[in-house]
Amino acid sequence: MGALQFHQHHHQLQISPKSMTPIFPCNLRAITTTLCLRSIVSERFSTSLPKLCTPKSAKTKSISKVSADELKEKWLQSLTCPPPLKETENPIPENDVSCGNEEVPSSNSGSQWVIGIDPDVSGALAILKTNDFGYSAQVYDSPNVKVLVGNRVRRRLDANAMVELLRSFNIPLGTTAYIEQSIPFPGDGKQGWWSGGFNYGLWIGVLVASEVSVVPVPSMRWKSEFKLSGNGSTKDNSRALACNLFPQISSSLRRKKDHGRAEALLIAAYGKGIKLNFDSSNTNTTTTTSTT
Amino acid sequence: MGALQFHQHHHQLQISPKSMTPIFPCNLRAITTTLCLRSIVSERFSTSLPKLCTPKSAKTKSISKVSADELKEKWLQSLTCPPPLKETENPIPENDVSCGNEEVPSSNSGSQWVIGIDPDVSGALAILKTNDFGYSAQVYDSPNVKVLVGNRVRRRLDANAMVELLRSFNIPLGTTAYIEQSIPFPGDGKQGWWSGGFNYGLWIGVLVASEVSVVPVPSMRWKSEFKLSGNGSTKDNSRALACNLFPQISSSLRRKKDHGRAEALLIAAYGKGIKLNFDSSNTNTTTTTSTT
Repeated sequence: MGALQFHQHHHQLQISPKSMTPIFPCNLRAITTTLCLRSIVSERFSTSLPKLCTPKSAKTKSISKVSADELKEKWLQSLTCPPPLKETENPIPENDVSCGNEEVPSSNSGSQWVIGIDPDVSGALAILKTNDFGYSAQVYDSPNVKVLVGNRVRRRLDANAMVELLRSFNIPLGTTAYIEQSIPFPGDGKQGWWSGGFNYGLWIGVLVASEVSVVPVPSMRWKSEFKLSGNGSTKDNSRALACNLFPQISSSLRRKKDHGRAEALLIAAYGKGIKLNFDSSNTNTTTTTSTT
Repeated sequence: MGALQFHQHHHQLQISPKSMTPIFPCNLRAITTTLCLRSIVSERFSTSLPKLCTPKSAKTKSISKVSADELKEKWLQSLTCPPPLKETENPIPENDVSCGNEEVPSSNSGSQWVIGIDPDVSGALAILKTNDFGYSAQVYDSPNVKVLVGNRVRRRLDANAMVELLRSFNIPLGTTAYIEQSIPFPGDGKQGWWSGGFNYGLWIGVLVASEVSVVPVPSMRWKSEFKLSGNGSTKDNSRALACNLFPQISSSLRRKKDHGRAEALLIAAYGKGIKLNFDSSNTNTTTTTSTT
């Protein structure tokens, strides 16, 4: 028999193939041991969830408003880096330095940066950084690679290039990325629903593993903040507003297909707390910046 | 005017909000500068792609067999860590040490580990490690967190816990994770297609950003290797075979819902090059292991 090894948090079983029983199919009824690997996160969260009504379906359950807030909070926690400290854990000392990299700012300086992401394959990543003159803006098309899906060529986000791009920024600990929540249109095809989920998941995975906290923002929310919601508003309006907010970058927003760049900038602006003061007497706007 | 700054690989524009023109909508026709931010990966790959036929749709194009192989290669490269070196780049010196972590093995030892992943929310991560006695097997349920989707509670993969889980292994550089390719059934609903894409993207993002190379494997391929393909084969057959290959872990595979664990183990076994020698005279099997 191989040795059974247990880690503190995860169950681990170590075996040697030499001891394998060469019988197929194995007799499942003969298995009497009760070792059960449980999800570490199920263990972490299960006690804080209320008892739910009898589910109509095995996969979904009804939920009250109170626990809806709890669930939302836990979902955000699952995307927050570094993860919220447990009560028993000590906070990182103020003079803690990152793994030999002297250029990494302290965790407090993260609030000076805000990332905005349009997660579509034609989307972009924008960074707003506070500086002595206000803030700087940068925008980068999402890296992509051509792939075959069936006998068609489609573009797909390039995971390695996304990691490389993020690392090139030397992002301060504590930085938050605001990402447009993936809410496909009911009229979109299944391929569109799959791609929406894939792009959104890939960005979240890369960001969280790169120690950037993620906050999903429904498009309705950031668009409403900038008076871009409603049927009358188009992607061109997003570009126009981004040109207005970031005039020095407007030359990179001049084409119709630059709406991903514009929306990434506006999502970052939403995350940064930039407010538009609409003057009803004319079409001009002014901006103010609140702290994030 | 704010200063324009350019990085070596990415265009960066730095501006001050004090210089913003408070006009909305801005006059797009007046924008005459031609600065164009291009995808770093489009730049990297565009020259190697053949000219394609006139597309029937703006998003998809026909493709020849030759370029299909090229596209597949480039897709795999986009998931390989560390990324393939460019000709001008120097390889990492042999005595290079990782960022203060003396326990990280050299890149060569990665081939001793193979990770298998069933990316479903009810899936799992399995690790096979070569040791003096053959190899050890470990399996972990995928961490998940409950979220509200509409007014329903659904489980979703927990990004932070996935990162935490991977880091707990101290994975050698050069390790490859084999992940079941997300190919939803046409009969699945749109929510299923979205979730399939999300789970798959999230795992790829977390793995690649954690410097683990990813190789997608269609279920048909690994199931065919283990004679599990065909309509007659069920998830119970996967559990039975996993019990057979990993008898010391079989107690954790006894429930119907443990098929995710079983399939993660079998995907890892496929990646590890474990072969079944089916004996037609009876139902017994023996195994051999080839190098990965």
